[in-house]
Amino acid sequence: MAIANKNIIFVAGLGGIGLDTSREIVKSGPKNLVILDRIDNPAAIAELKAINPKVTVTFYPYDVTVSVAESTKLLKVIFDKLKTVDLLINGAGILDDYQIERTIAVNFAGTVNTTTAIMAFWDKRKGGPGGVIANICSVTGFNAIYQVPVYSASKAAALSFTNSLAKLAPITGVTAYSINPGITKTTLVHKFNSWLDVEPRVAELLLEHPTQTTLQCAQNFVKAIEANKNGAIWKLDLGRLDAIEWTKHWDSGI
Amino acid sequence: MAIANKNIIFVAGLGGIGLDTSREIVKSGPKNLVILDRIDNPAAIAELKAINPKVTVTFYPYDVTVSVAESTKLLKVIFDKLKTVDLLINGAGILDDYQIERTIAVNFAGTVNTTTAIMAFWDKRKGGPGGVIANICSVTGFNAIYQVPVYSASKAAALSFTNSLAKLAPITGVTAYSINPGITKTTLVHKFNSWLDVEPRVAELLLEHPTQTTLQCAQNFVKAIEANKNGAIWKLDLGRLDAIEWTKHWDSGI
Repeated sequence: MAIANKNIIFVAGLGGIGLDTSREIVKSGPKNLVILDRIDNPAAIAELKAINPKVTVTFYPYDVTVSVAESTKLLKVIFDKLKTVDLLINGAGILDDYQIERTIAVNFAGTVNTTTAIMAFWDKRKGGPGGVIANICSVTGFNAIYQVPVYSASKAAALSFTNSLAKLAPITGVTAYSINPGITKTTLVHKFNSWLDVEPRVAELLLEHPTQTTLQCAQNFVKAIEANKNGAIWKLDLGRLDAIEWTKHWDSGI
Repeated sequence: MAIANKNIIFVAGLGGIGLDTSREIVKSGPKNLVILDRIDNPAAIAELKAINPKVTVTFYPYDVTVSVAESTKLLKVIFDKLKTVDLLINGAGILDDYQIERTIAVNFAGTVNTTTAIMAFWDKRKGGPGGVIANICSVTGFNAIYQVPVYSASKAAALSFTNSLAKLAPITGVTAYSINPGITKTTLVHKFNSWLDVEPRVAELLLEHPTQTTLQCAQNFVKAIEANKNGAIWKLDLGRLDAIEWTKHWDSGI
């Protein structure tokens, strides 16, 4: 059981996919669910507490674009309180190809920085106990929505980074897998900007094709957490959960 | 002929792979080779001029981490002088996983920003003539050197972005392909830092395996430029040039 009685940090746990996933997580009875998000939502936090009163749900404001040092400071507060953390979920993401710098900072650098920060507490080379990282990437990291090339590329980066983390597990003691949702009916995809307006109707066109609900995605997310498989590349699309086999085009040999 | 009598901008054309590629390019007789690089190297520029005196070789200092607006300003100076530009090569890259922010800024954001800037001159929706973009990505964008997860991820991002650009060609008139070198004997790979020192000997270990010379890489680079194939994912490894077929794990449907 990767959730029951565990301590979990969920970055962007109040977001589009995040909130339904937080609801499913608390149902599985973790000891602590620590939600880090940019903006507090006391009603949502209260609701999560009400779903399962045995779970301690806490909230800290957190912007993933801060420095590694800032992230480390916040994590220290959390580790000091909980003593151990078992799972970190990195879920911060924006979808707006007008905002090149911010897309890269949130979707890619944010994931790298929060991960880098938690290594100070988890890395077994420093006497840490190890841990598990679940990074929310995207199917657009496999194959782009080419009308949002910056978003898609930022997700390809997050995915590649996660695959590397998994291979580093023997060294660091920290395992990792990626959660790659397909088009999910969130406010994120309701309307968004394409790069240089190459396709002003991109959101509309996407939503003409089959999608999944945030609840379907959240339920499969929890299944992936319970599977707890280092290196897994989970595709959560159209209400299904499938593991992807990454193609080897090259091998560093080391 | 994609080089003879053409006007070419080469970002990082004095770099590890860049300089030998610039040498091969001038041999093929472009009209203009405009090299943008962070640091001038008058001896190298003089050498390029001497290889083929019919080619006009010019240099402008350029740091790819400047804003799109700054990049646009420099490109305006170049377009005002040359009137037309046929090919943009984006080759700026650093390999140092101690420097997370800079790796992302140079290898990923730099490629996106220079590309975004040139669209103002090339985009056919604005009456531009179109153009060709060759982005130097890396085989680590296919499959990481997991000891440098940030570098590898930044290259996965540049590759994904390039694949998207190619699909946008019918809209923008700008075609694109990626140049993905394997391990090439440059100063870049002589010694470099792994992420959190996960493998201090990463450079040494890599170089125990077969590599290629910068000349081999440069000669295949010129072949790829001459092939001029929109959407091609070129692998330049061990002295070979091969086109990669990207795996479809998902399709946006639009």
